[in-house]
Formats: sequence, structure tokens, C-alpha cells
Amino acid sequence: MTKLNWGMIGGGNGSQIGPAHRIAAGLDGLFSFAAGALDHDADAGRAFGRSLGLAADRSYGDWREMLAGEAARADRVELVTIATPNATHYEIAKAFLQAGFHVLCEKPMTVTVAQAEDLVRTAAQAGRVCAVNYGYTGYALVRHMRAMVARGDIGRVRLVVAEFAHGHHANAADMDNPRVRWRYDPAQAGVSAQFADCGIHAMHMASFVTGQEVATLSADFASCLAGRVLEDDAMVNFRMEGGTVGRLWTSSVAIGRQHGLTLQVFGETGGLRWSQEQPNQLFYMPLGQRLQVIERGEGNLSPEADCASRVTVGHAEGMPLAFANIYRDLAETLNAAREARKPDPAKTLFPGAADGLRSIAAIHAAVVSAQNAGRWEDARPPMFR
Amino acid sequence: MTKLNWGMIGGGNGSQIGPAHRIAAGLDGLFSFAAGALDHDADAGRAFGRSLGLAADRSYGDWREMLAGEAARADRVELVTIATPNATHYEIAKAFLQAGFHVLCEKPMTVTVAQAEDLVRTAAQAGRVCAVNYGYTGYALVRHMRAMVARGDIGRVRLVVAEFAHGHHANAADMDNPRVRWRYDPAQAGVSAQFADCGIHAMHMASFVTGQEVATLSADFASCLAGRVLEDDAMVNFRMEGGTVGRLWTSSVAIGRQHGLTLQVFGETGGLRWSQEQPNQLFYMPLGQRLQVIERGEGNLSPEADCASRVTVGHAEGMPLAFANIYRDLAETLNAAREARKPDPAKTLFPGAADGLRSIAAIHAAVVSAQNAGRWEDARPPMFR
Amino acid sequence: MTKLNWGMIGGGNGSQIGPAHRIAAGLDGLFSFAAGALDHDADAGRAFGRSLGLAADRSYGDWREMLAGEAARADRVELVTIATPNATHYEIAKAFLQAGFHVLCEKPMTVTVAQAEDLVRTAAQAGRVCAVNYGYTGYALVRHMRAMVARGDIGRVRLVVAEFAHGHHANAADMDNPRVRWRYDPAQAGVSAQFADCGIHAMHMASFVTGQEVATLSADFASCLAGRVLEDDAMVNFRMEGGTVGRLWTSSVAIGRQHGLTLQVFGETGGLRWSQEQPNQLFYMPLGQRLQVIERGEGNLSPEADCASRVTVGHAEGMPLAFANIYRDLAETLNAAREARKPDPAKTLFPGAADGLRSIAAIHAAVVSAQNAGRWEDARPPMFR
Amino acid sequence: MTKLNWGMIGGGNGSQIGPAHRIAAGLDGLFSFAAGALDHDADAGRAFGRSLGLAADRSYGDWREMLAGEAARADRVELVTIATPNATHYEIAKAFLQAGFHVLCEKPMTVTVAQAEDLVRTAAQAGRVCAVNYGYTGYALVRHMRAMVARGDIGRVRLVVAEFAHGHHANAADMDNPRVRWRYDPAQAGVSAQFADCGIHAMHMASFVTGQEVATLSADFASCLAGRVLEDDAMVNFRMEGGTVGRLWTSSVAIGRQHGLTLQVFGETGGLRWSQEQPNQLFYMPLGQRLQVIERGEGNLSPEADCASRVTVGHAEGMPLAFANIYRDLAETLNAAREARKPDPAKTLFPGAADGLRSIAAIHAAVVSAQNAGRWEDARPPMFR
Repeated sequence: MTKLNWGMIGGGNGSQIGPAHRIAAGLDGLFSFAAGALDHDADAGRAFGRSLGLAADRSYGDWREMLAGEAARADRVELVTIATPNATHYEIAKAFLQAGFHVLCEKPMTVTVAQAEDLVRTAAQAGRVCAVNYGYTGYALVRHMRAMVARGDIGRVRLVVAEFAHGHHANAADMDNPRVRWRYDPAQAGVSAQFADCGIHAMHMASFVTGQEVATLSADFASCLAGRVLEDDAMVNFRMEGGTVGRLWTSSVAIGRQHGLTLQVFGETGGLRWSQEQPNQLFYMPLGQRLQVIERGEGNLSPEADCASRVTVGHAEGMPLAFANIYRDLAETLNAAREARKPDPAKTLFPGAADGLRSIAAIHAAVVSAQNAGRWEDARPPMFR
Repeated sequence: MTKLNWGMIGGGNGSQIGPAHRIAAGLDGLFSFAAGALDHDADAGRAFGRSLGLAADRSYGDWREMLAGEAARADRVELVTIATPNATHYEIAKAFLQAGFHVLCEKPMTVTVAQAEDLVRTAAQAGRVCAVNYGYTGYALVRHMRAMVARGDIGRVRLVVAEFAHGHHANAADMDNPRVRWRYDPAQAGVSAQFADCGIHAMHMASFVTGQEVATLSADFASCLAGRVLEDDAMVNFRMEGGTVGRLWTSSVAIGRQHGLTLQVFGETGGLRWSQEQPNQLFYMPLGQRLQVIERGEGNLSPEADCASRVTVGHAEGMPLAFANIYRDLAETLNAAREARKPDPAKTLFPGAADGLRSIAAIHAAVVSAQNAGRWEDARPPMFR
Repeated sequence: MTKLNWGMIGGGNGSQIGPAHRIAAGLDGLFSFAAGALDHDADAGRAFGRSLGLAADRSYGDWREMLAGEAARADRVELVTIATPNATHYEIAKAFLQAGFHVLCEKPMTVTVAQAEDLVRTAAQAGRVCAVNYGYTGYALVRHMRAMVARGDIGRVRLVVAEFAHGHHANAADMDNPRVRWRYDPAQAGVSAQFADCGIHAMHMASFVTGQEVATLSADFASCLAGRVLEDDAMVNFRMEGGTVGRLWTSSVAIGRQHGLTLQVFGETGGLRWSQEQPNQLFYMPLGQRLQVIERGEGNLSPEADCASRVTVGHAEGMPLAFANIYRDLAETLNAAREARKPDPAKTLFPGAADGLRSIAAIHAAVVSAQNAGRWEDARPPMFR
Repeated sequence: MTKLNWGMIGGGNGSQIGPAHRIAAGLDGLFSFAAGALDHDADAGRAFGRSLGLAADRSYGDWREMLAGEAARADRVELVTIATPNATHYEIAKAFLQAGFHVLCEKPMTVTVAQAEDLVRTAAQAGRVCAVNYGYTGYALVRHMRAMVARGDIGRVRLVVAEFAHGHHANAADMDNPRVRWRYDPAQAGVSAQFADCGIHAMHMASFVTGQEVATLSADFASCLAGRVLEDDAMVNFRMEGGTVGRLWTSSVAIGRQHGLTLQVFGETGGLRWSQEQPNQLFYMPLGQRLQVIERGEGNLSPEADCASRVTVGHAEGMPLAFANIYRDLAETLNAAREARKPDPAKTLFPGAADGLRSIAAIHAAVVSAQNAGRWEDARPPMFR
């Protein structure tokens, strides 16, 4: 199998997300890192690209140069990952999609709902993939939860309870720390801080696992640190299109919690609980029986989980492998197209532009709700109503 | 030290709460079980009382007979526990208070806010204790959380997150099971089911630990089982009088959870987490340091915790000993009065009539809020506004 | 049902074991605390007894006085608990057994194997119970493990792995602390320290749960603190009479462990794991299936477990209730004899003199083994070979 | 930085260890997979190599062909990983070392102590690295334990307790399953099964973390399944050169345990506990204080841990990243030599030939001990006595 050429925009020297993408894309040997515009400083970006082994003529100074350069090549990259500042995602993604590239965009996909709707349409018109990196859904046992729900193991889903609550922004002494401050400044972060940054992962996971979209929501936002403008703690109640009741708590002031992404799903005939900090176990209780511990890698779980595991049962797998499953999905999709075959449905679970759009719409709806004392809002984007 | 004479109304043969009270009251040898009207069937009650060792003339047929009989005795019981159906609490408690008895009332203290306010006034006028059995606050480490907050270990409290979510009413086949059905029937259970039954314990604990009362709240109720009238799942957001943000989730359809009473408290300089199912450990993270495991019984925790522990560190203590601490507190209060001394403040933490009243008010406020799409309501009883 | 009169020797003011016994004996209302010789100081013991509510003429100055006094009464105590220094157990227990009293003796039952064999014979000849307080076997889920093994849930038992390892004697600064020092001084503690004090609980539990006695053993003792004579850490390998392989680790220098009593039992068709610090859950894996969490109180576990539980599932029970089950068992045995009926086999699981004897023999065998580089020794007392 | 050329012998199509090495070697972009002799079937191996992207002339039919081919190239591989059947390790490793290649050998390094001593000498004479893949020591928090011990955080180490106990060979129905049977057949597996396969990882980790070698040992082996020749359960007591007491339990019949590699280290002033199944937390108790949870990635732990972490705190890392740290260490060592600089001591913690030798010697000593009723044996290889 030939590797797919892959390129990256952003993720320069010193960034955390850059190495994460390069590890994830390279892990299974499906992608070859072939081009990049890695830094807003053109020279720094070119030098860093070359230090990572990129050819000199594919280590670009900015995304426009990369777009032009790659579009002109026969061996052009097939997938472009966009890990630039949030406000630039829309423009870059649109340009690459229109030029026939597939795109994996860091979240949030765009700033506004209108932009997101435009990207959904652009991708459809171009016949290209516009994926969004909700990487936590790459965990094998998250995918197994989805498979269990889909095949009816817990019956109709009544209730989903999601959390993403940590304590890393709780220190009042960090109010002026630039690494923290911008996140709560509307001028830099937009309309929402903690819900947009973390909570939305949990909301997307609730949809991913239940197979239902969020229909309406009511939000209560709080800024627990004096002087902080945007929310550092939020509770969002929601209802899903299939009638499921949703609860979502997110916080960045929960001292003592390191990460806190957790999903509980309760159906008519069973309950499930999974936590990102202990991702290799899934707790399952069939109605009237006992709590069981499902282990990642135990085998014969579901096609989705089995093919998302790489090491034997009892050995821990972590975030980088979850993330690699997103790339593995994209490779499957691209290769299937190239080979004119139907892709394996268990290997094409990456979040797409519609998911990115729904998230942007939910963030905006939550902000409006919070500004109106928790008034229930339609969480769906106009084009999906 | 002479034992205090104690009596009980309700808690007849086959009830669960009866033995729990008798174990708790007797555990430390502070109370002597001396009188009872244990069953709504007078003969059954008398026979059961005698089988438990009550004297024939103090094994009464009903509470009125007991009130008359005990009031006439020199060695009358000093404390009466009321564990009858909820709707009867008010009348019985009022009568005994007015006759000069101290009272420990099962929760909910009354059905209406007006009744609860009347009991608060009645107890004050009579100079008698009207305690309410929020027994979970008797756990040594819950009391230690309270002490830590009070002495400033986590700074000003910003956020409290409470849960009481189990899965014992999730089976649709139990819709007609009489042991479950009445709980969701307004005619029998009143205005609220799961929030009034379980959630309110968590809300009281939030106040107990933070030392702040709930000021306003917004509730989202759901009935997850088709045909169920009252809520089996609820999310309540609240604000406390000191400005603390509150989140409270309660459920009876969370399959896989056995009990689920959990409290997380986050302050300016630390966070705390405690769970009823693992009550002998308290998880504490001082800001910028590491998560620590505080063990019940480790010694020198706080006067409140140290005197509430009975076995050495590393040995489990459970609910019956927590419950016994409520009785221990009542004995300290009554004995101090008898001995004309100041009671030990670390041993007088039992919930009183004001707490019972606040709970009733909060339940009613939550119901109104839930009926009005989560409109924020004043959670305080009129007499405390 | 009439309460049984009960008395206690030792457990004076300030002791920890005294209140533990009084709580346990009184918890279910089966015993009435009627007599005591509570302190080696006669006056102090009498005064303390009266302060606990004993009648003046039954608050004795020493055990001989109590033996004479009680033997002369029609309402004499039926059961005597012995919680005096270890070296005195034998003499006191023998005297009371011969005078027709039932006895519950703190562990170790005696100092020597010969004494223990004599007590076994004495009890048999007197037709009286001589129980030994391995109180941890009173936990409901320990009893359920035993029941599961007995009914074949895990098939023939292949392997049992027991631990009782804590870190409370790890501080070198405590070498001269009287509360620690005596434990490692042969003149005061006898031939063994940590194994005799803690490890033997784990070994007894291994026998209790598997229904097999220890046949042979090999021990490796270590004194981890310089200057400490007796062992503070020990590993004992053993073989049981049914062929089961045994491993037992005990330590008092394992800093970070609070108690550490844990039992794992592995059979042909399943495995079990239980830990005293989380006593309300039992982890069970049927061969080829998944780990299950068995909850104390879930109902229909086994007669042994169901009748040893007092509070509903999801609520913690702790050590005092386990301990109370030992007394409950003794009451059942004594009452059945009084009522000329067969006792309930699910309620008569208390450890007896034979268990006490086997433990003494195993301690002595382990000491000999450890002194001979782990030579395998017969662990059985001569009378059971 | 130029990538290092790397090759592999063994790890063919369908093997588990092959992908694990390829992921680990490639993860950080330090090695380029350039050559291989991947299968004992020459054609299958060549075809599989090409399918993985190897050049046709570097996809060899067997290791001798690869040795000849690579030795003749200017761009020859610098490191060769050997993942062939155990009995072939010695011959292959020796040949490659003598030809000037660096080697990473799967464990066990050799079959006999004499072979292992020869490899130690061969590597030294050739001036080449002969690493052995005890991959679990690559976990960031295992390395942090080592660093904590080395810098004195827990004082002199008194006691180390290691476990590697799982239940995957407990099913009697698997006696004839070829995937299990060979492991317990002396003709195929050698002198030891479970201790050599799993236990030795735990023993190496004990040395790695404490910085002390095992001096003497006493073993108790058991074959819990009827008809099984080699041990499936073993307890090994040992003493380390610095005086530390060691306990090691390993089992493959512990139903309910998935992996079970756990290390507890107890020193004069603190205790540590780590488990492979929850590898991102390290439990630390400083003497007289409280149990603390050290999180992988919390920052400023130690140079060894900090540079072994790739994702931010709160995100799980698993076995593949631990394994990648072994390759990262090798790259650092090779690059430092190439660049004529001192390698970073925090990045050169891979196990070497001496470690492989010590393990073989310990296995043989344990077998002799077990055959002689646990007689204490010198665990050191002759050349290190």
C-alpha cells in the first residue's frame, strides 16, 4: 500500500498540537509527511519544516504558498491538517477544499455559524472530506460505546451525562498569565471560553455515542474568578433529537481534577460509563445484573473497537493512539476512494464538517441561553432545522 | 453518665428505617430505648415493641397514646424519633414539641413550606430541639470537609458540585411495582419525587459543608420512563448566599450506579471530593500541589472529624456510624442542657428545623422552576428572606 | 427474645478494643452488658464499669472476683469476652470454660501450641464455645466469598493470595515509642511480631474462605528497621490440605498503605478479590467472562451474606458491623442451645478454638521456617496431624 | 537531524511484536525503517517487507542475507531489532554485533547464562550497544520512580514488592491450545515459563527503580493446572546488593487480573506504588504525611520523566509510548556517538546486555531454588560475582 502524502499548516516549533498530529498521522505508516507551512513566521516555518525532514521546496513560508505549490504538483499532498489560530481556519480550509484537497481542521472549525455552514457546503460541492479533530472519539472504547448503543445493548437511550471539568485555570495569580488570559478575553477567544474549548468535546461525544444530535439546550455560565469575562464553568442541559435528556458540566476551576472528560449513557436496559483518564476500561451494567468491566483489547467487542486497538488487553493505550485512529479513518476513506471500493464502516468514524457546524451552533446557542437566564434555545444550525 | 430515655414513632416490624434508628441511637450507649408507637396497626405495634424489650405500658398503640402516656411519667422519654409516613410528620412533631419533648424527624420534615415554618417557630417557642435526619452529614469526613472549609483550607468557595444519582428505578417493568410506583405518583409523593427524595440530601450537604444557604435555583426535571408523572432525573443549578455557584444532579435511572451521593467543593485555594460509597477517604488538592488522600481516622484532622470516628485508620466505617453521630450530637445537646454547660460545638452538628424548612422551600422552588422552563426562583423560605 | 447477659474482662478506660466489643455486642440488641473486670487496676476497673452502667456488684476488680461472683448468680453472664494482655488469655479462658461460661477470646488465643491444644480440649469437655476474634471474617462479602467457593462458583481452588501490609511501624524515630517498641521485643511480643499480629488474620481468612486448612509453609522474615529484633515484614508460602497453593505477604513498613488486608482466590472457573479498605465490593471474574462488581446488600447473594448485611445496597458498612456479626453468630449459637433447636448455619460462622489453635501452630511453624532459611514446615498442630 | 536507518529481524505478518516495534521506532521520527528479514519463510518475509515500504533489495529472506547485504552498504542500518524465536537470539545478536551493528534484542536475550555472558563480552569488544527490550521501564512514571529513589526522596530502600500476575492461561480447556501449550513445555520454553516470561519483567523493574541488583533469591514454583510441567505461578523472595528485601509474585492463573505488573517500593522516608494498568499515576507517600497522586506530565517531576512524556497532563499515555522511549534512548545514544557528544543521561535508560544477563542468571537460579524446596541461591551471573 502506498502511503498518502500529507501536509500540515501550523503546528510550528514549540507547539503541542504539531507533534501530536505528526505522531498520529505517522503512527500506522499510512501517511507520509510531505509538505508544511508550519509557522506564521515564514523563515522559521521553512527551517522547522526542513529540520523535520521536509524537502526544501515543500517547506513553505505560508499557507498560500503551500496551496499554490502543492496544487501544481503531481505528488501533491492529499490531506492537509489545519492547526492555525481559530480565526483563520475558515479561510484556509475553504481554499484548500476548493482546490481539491481533503482537510482535517482543528476545532473549532470556524468562528461563526455562517462560516461553518459555508464550509459544509463547500466540502460537499468539492466532493472532499472536511474532517474536524474531535480526537477523543478515536478511543477504542468510545467507539465501542457507540457500537453498543447502535446495536441496542442498552435499549433506547434515556439520559446522557457528560463532563469535561478540570482545574488548570483556577489560580487567581494566573489572571495575567498570557497562556491563560487570552482564553477568557472575548476579543481573542470569541463568545465562549470553557464551553467552547472543552465542553464541546463532551457534547460532541454525547452525539457520537448516542447517534443523536442535540436539538435544544439551556445553559448556566459562571465566571468564578473575579475579573474574568468569559465563563470558566458551565452547566448545559439539553434534549436530543431522539428524546434523550442531556446534562453537561464543564469547568476549568475544579481544582484536583486533571482532565475530567467523562461520559455516562443510560438506556432502557443498561448503563455505560467511560472516562478519558482511565480510557482502557468501560463500565457497563445491564439492567438487573452487575457492573461489568469491559477491557479494551479483550477481543470480539465490536468491529469499531477491535480495529481501533493496537496492543493486547491489559496494556494501556492512550491519547496518541486515539488520535491516530482519526488519521487511520481518513486514510481508509481516501484509499477507498482511490481504490474505488466501499470504505470499511468501522474505520470511517471521524467527525466531519457537519459535526463541526453543529458544535459551533451549539456554542452560540449556549451563549445566548446563558445571557438570557437559561432560556431554552434551538441548538441546531439553521441549515439542519 | 445516665442514659437518656428515647422513644420512637413508626419504624415497625419489617421497616428498614426502624432498625437503623435503633442501632444508631443505641450504638454509643447514650440512649435507652424506652417507649414506642411503632406501627399504624395498634396491636401489631404494641406486640413489636414488647418483642424489642419495651415495657408493656410503654409499648403504645399510637402516637397520641404515647404522647399522653409519656407526658404523664417522671421518667418520660426526652427524645422522640418520628419515622412515620411523610404527611404525618408535621402534626406529630408539633404535638410532641409543644408537650416539651425533643424531636428527631425523618425527612422531609413536612409537606408544605407553611408547616415547616410553623415547626421552626414551634420548636423555638417550646425551647426544644427539632432535628431532621439528614444522616449522611454524620460521616466523619463530611464533617471534616465542613471544618476545612470553615477554617479556610480551600479559601473562598467558588463552586460546589453535588450528585445523588442511582439506577434503582430504571426498570420499566417496575412501573406497577408498588414499592416504586408510589414515589412517582403526585397523590402519594407530593410535588417532587427524585429531587425531594435524594437530591435534597445532596443540596443539604452542599449547605452543610460550605456553610452557605441556597439563595436561588433553576431546575430541569425529566421523567425518563414513559408514563411516569413525577421526575426521575433532575438537574438543579443554584447560587448560594455567599456567591458560590452550585450544580446538582440527581437521578434514579442511572443504571450502574448504586447510590451516587458525591460532593465536590472548589475554592480559591483548593478542591475537595467525597463520595458516600467510599466514605473513609477524602480527596483534597491544595492549589498548585497534588491530590492528597485524607483518611478517616488519621488523627488530628479536626475536632469535628476526630470525635466522629470510632475505629482506627484503615478500617472502614459505614452509614450506621454516621447515623449514630446524629444521635451522639443530640445526646450532647440534651446532656449539656441538663448539666447546664455549653455543648461541645464539634458534637452538635445535627441538622435542625431550619434546615428542614430550607429543604422544603428548595423543593417547592425547584418544582416551580421546572414547570417554567428553568426560570430562576428564590429558594429561601419566606421567613428567611 | 430475651437478651443474653454478657461480660467483659479487659478493655478498660482508654483502650480501643473495649468500645469496639461493647458496640459490637450491643449493636443488634442481642446481648446485655451485665458484668466486667475491665482494668488491671481493680479500683479503676470497678469505677469504669459503673460509669458504663454496670451494677456495682457486677463491676469487678479482677477476673477471679468476676468468676466467683458470676458463677454464684442465677442471672450470670453467659458469654465472657477476654481482651486482656495476650499472656493471660489461656489461664482466664480455661477457668471460665471450666466454670461453664462461653468465651470469646481476643487473638492470639494463647502463647503456646500446647496451651491452645489444651483450650480446644477444655472447651470440648465443658461443652462450651471458645470463640476467637478474627473479626474481619464477619464482613458480609468475606462470608459471601466463602459461600461462593463452597457452592462451586469458582471451581476447585488453585491459588490463594493474601496480604495484610501497612506502613504504621515504618518510622525509625518510633523505635523507642512504647506503643511500637514492645511489638518487636521478644520478651513482650513472643516469637513473632508482624506475622503473629496481622499476617495471621490473612492466613485465617484464607482458610475461612477456601474451607481448607494450611498444611505446610515456608517463611521469609525480615526486620527492615535496624535494631528491630522481630520481623516487620514477612512472606509465607504455603500449601493447603486440599492442594491449594498459598502466598501471604504481611508488612508494617509499607509506607502509603493504611491497612492492606486483601484476599484473592483463584479457582478453576473463576477468581475473586476483596479488600478490607473497600469492603462493600467484591470483584468476581467467571472464567472467560468479565470482571463483575458484587455489591454488599444487592440481595440474593447467599444466606451467609444476606443475613450479615444491615443496610441497603450502596450504603457503606464497616468494621463495627463485621465485628457485630461475630457476636450475632454467638447469640444464635447460644440461643439455639437454649431453645433446643438447630442453629442457622448461615449465622454460626464465628472462628472457634480449633481456628485459634491452628493459627498459633502456623505462627510457630513460620518462625522455625524463617530461622531455617525457609525450610518447609508442617503448619498443623500436633493434635490435628 | 538525520534519521537513523533501522532494521528488523522477525516480526512478520500477523505477529504482535512486529507492529509494536515499528510504531515505537517510528513514533518520534528518529528512525527510518530501512531493512528487514521479517519472516522465517523467506518469500513471505520479502513480500511483507516490501508491503511495508522497504526497498526490494533491503527486504531480505533471512538474517544472514540481511547481515551480508547491510554490511556492504554505505547507508547500512545502524540498529537491528531482533524479534525472532528465543533460541535464535544469541546467534543473530552476536553476528550483528561483531559486524558492527547496534542491536536491540527481545527478551530473553539468550537461553543460557553462558551465552548471555558471551554477548556482554561481545558487545563490549565490538563497542556496540546490545539493548534488551524490557519495554515497561520506558514508562515515564517508572523512570520517575527511579529518579525519586536516586535523589533520595524515599531514603534508603528497605523493601520492594513486585507483581506480574494475570489470568490468561487459567483455562484448562486451553491445555492443548498451541498458543498456550508451548509456553509450559520445557522442550519449547526452556527451564521456566511464567517467571521467565513475565516475572522477570517485574524483577528487572525492581532493579531498574532501586538501582540495586538482585544478589540472592529463593523461589516457590507451582503448576496449578494438572498436567502442566513448567510453573504457572511463582513466588520469589530475594535480597538485593544494597540490602533491600524483595518479594515477587507472578502468575498466569490469576483469573480476573488482566496484566498485573505492579511495583511497590518502600524506603526509610517514603513509599511508592505504580501499576502498568494505570500507568499515568504514581502513588507516593512521604513518611508521616499523606498519600499523593503524582500525575505523568505534571511537569518538573524529574528530567527522566519530563523528557519521557509526550502529551499534556490528564491525557493518558500507554504502552506504545513507553516502548518508544526505549528507541528514543537508543537514538540518543547513537546520535551522541555520531556527534561526538556526551549523551543526555535522562535519555539513555534503556536496559543493556548486562541487564539481559542478570535476568537469565536469575531465572536459572530461581529454577534451581524451586527444585530444591526454596533453597537460597546466588542470583548473580558468574562474571558479576
